[in-house]
Amino acid sequence: MTRENKLGPEARPRALAEPVSELTTNRLSVYLRSLGALDAAGVRTISSQALAEQFHLNAPQIRKDLAYFGEFGVRGIGYYVKDLRRHLRQILGLDRGVRVAIMGAGNLGLALADYPGFRDDGFEIVALFDTLKEKIGRRSRGGVLIHDIRNFKKTVKREGIEVAVIAVPAAGAQAVVNTVVGAGVKAILNFSPGAFKVPPGVKLKNMDLTVSLESLSFFLVQGEADA
Amino acid sequence: MTRENKLGPEARPRALAEPVSELTTNRLSVYLRSLGALDAAGVRTISSQALAEQFHLNAPQIRKDLAYFGEFGVRGIGYYVKDLRRHLRQILGLDRGVRVAIMGAGNLGLALADYPGFRDDGFEIVALFDTLKEKIGRRSRGGVLIHDIRNFKKTVKREGIEVAVIAVPAAGAQAVVNTVVGAGVKAILNFSPGAFKVPPGVKLKNMDLTVSLESLSFFLVQGEADA
Repeated sequence: MTRENKLGPEARPRALAEPVSELTTNRLSVYLRSLGALDAAGVRTISSQALAEQFHLNAPQIRKDLAYFGEFGVRGIGYYVKDLRRHLRQILGLDRGVRVAIMGAGNLGLALADYPGFRDDGFEIVALFDTLKEKIGRRSRGGVLIHDIRNFKKTVKREGIEVAVIAVPAAGAQAVVNTVVGAGVKAILNFSPGAFKVPPGVKLKNMDLTVSLESLSFFLVQGEADA
Repeated sequence: MTRENKLGPEARPRALAEPVSELTTNRLSVYLRSLGALDAAGVRTISSQALAEQFHLNAPQIRKDLAYFGEFGVRGIGYYVKDLRRHLRQILGLDRGVRVAIMGAGNLGLALADYPGFRDDGFEIVALFDTLKEKIGRRSRGGVLIHDIRNFKKTVKREGIEVAVIAVPAAGAQAVVNTVVGAGVKAILNFSPGAFKVPPGVKLKNMDLTVSLESLSFFLVQGEADA
């Protein structure tokens, strides 16, 4: 589960008729994943009905979500898989390549730097940042260089970094968030426990690992109540 | 964002009048987090209105969610913070302590084994599992022992493991999921990219890191459209 910070009105996608909810963009991501699988399997066209059936989705919801962004379906054919995939990547801003920095070169930061899903999807992890001298100048197994966090602002500009991932211990996390915001980065994915403050116009997404475990725990106790 | 697999009807919480949605348990987790902060700050009682205001929540929703599980509010007072917190921990099954295994002792597995939020919340990471001889017998920085995955079933029984976290490369993940299910574990938190199959009655929660980055990317392109 992710928690969302409130966005100021100026952060809303004004280019569209009304703001698009997080749930919608999450569904677009799921459609994109499904179309990728179809494309890899050589499928050229698919109806919303067949797409829904194969991937346990909702056909009217698919049509509604896609219609919001344009006219992608062709009567009697459905969607062209490759075309729709390209459109979705464009809508999500993945076609231009998104450059990402990871704050913290501990186990979590190193794991995220080499996470195979990111690069395939249009995200490029261009730098790790840490404060420890013995880490600076070294690289992740996948080859991402660990920079001195004191050079963050300079590196953001040079590398065109747009997203920062926070993977530092909770105690230092707000200071790191401040550094990130101070350098002009507008999108943050946070893995540190705790609630952090960002100014309006900056989007902070919290990955709360504990919330997911809690929902599994709830399932387990309710399951036990069945027995 | 997390994706859910479909549960068979036998997996539903029959102890309650109707199944409780994932969104509800996620909100309970958020309330629990808020009450923990209030308790730490020495607050003894709070109204749903004040709780909503302080943590950017919805007061009628809080009342509705809590009323579903019992009568926790006291007229003219609101909720007793410590009591409600204890009740929520009970509802989520955290009071009994949940024992968790992590599959894969790479960077991600090691990071998760020592993730500070888990233990504070009633989860105990009791074992890491790997296939690599040079890792088996070693420990995470926090002291979690790395076991041979061939001893998984035996260790699950001995240690009372109820939840398994999948932190192995995608290529081997379905085999590891099968091992976990085969040992009788009913709740799985998966960090590997890809869609994995589990039988009915087993709950698999996918932590899709890419989906979260995609929603940040969407925010960035729509933000740019503003300029």
